[in-house]
Amino acid sequence: MDFVEVKNLIMKSGMELKVNGVFNANPERFSINVGHSTEEIAVHVDVRFSYLSDKRQLIINHKTGDAWQEEQRDARFPFTAGQAFQVSVVFNFDTFDIYLPDGQVAHFTNHLGAQEYKYIFFVGDATVKNISVNVADKPTKR
Amino acid sequence: MDFVEVKNLIMKSGMELKVNGVFNANPERFSINVGHSTEEIAVHVDVRFSYLSDKRQLIINHKTGDAWQEEQRDARFPFTAGQAFQVSVVFNFDTFDIYLPDGQVAHFTNHLGAQEYKYIFFVGDATVKNISVNVADKPTKR
Repeated sequence: MDFVEVKNLIMKSGMELKVNGVFNANPERFSINVGHSTEEIAVHVDVRFSYLSDKRQLIINHKTGDAWQEEQRDARFPFTAGQAFQVSVVFNFDTFDIYLPDGQVAHFTNHLGAQEYKYIFFVGDATVKNISVNVADKPTKR
Repeated sequence: MDFVEVKNLIMKSGMELKVNGVFNANPERFSINVGHSTEEIAVHVDVRFSYLSDKRQLIINHKTGDAWQEEQRDARFPFTAGQAFQVSVVFNFDTFDIYLPDGQVAHFTNHLGAQEYKYIFFVGDATVKNISVNVADKPTKR
């Protein structure tokens, strides 16, 4: 179970976090998280291969006051155990656009409402290889 | 003065840290650091544009017990204020091979002698854009 933590790689509206990694051979779960801290998470992209009762289930959520809020359960699961992956999280002002490895896009409201986040962390059954935060090379609202 | 900190992006012998960023318009100093903590730094690549008495001076050093050791002062300084840069640090077992933006290579002994480091941080007058740790795509001893 990896826990990679990045502080002060500043995500502002209009920017994109791109992460590349490789899933473990028998992963249970891996998540990508952007926010202020482990208790205040603006977007939690939770890739559940086999976790609790979930099998091959993508869940997106946010956390505030160290409490998870309402899960957004996504029907798509373009992830493969043991394989490399790239996921982008575009910080699109009041929304996060999450570009899945197959190019599909999931949208998640910026419930915390900040226009800047300074804490990124990854937890779970994958090896993170590359982390980049740049001006988004994908469409944004402004 | 940025301080970007990455924990648990594990650097093992034979691996390469690649960092891309952009120097501020009027930078004093920017450093790339790999080690165990801020007190135990295996390799400190210190790009001094204008810092103390140094002008356009590259210094490489290591720190142990929170004390800087002997500076390795390099005559080359292929860095430009306000410009993008890429620097690679190849962890080459008993040596770090530091690939400068112009492709030249500086070598620095792995004085701390570990074969794995889990703490990377960047300090100073640049915006870090991309951080990757992968198996080195440059020659290594084994």
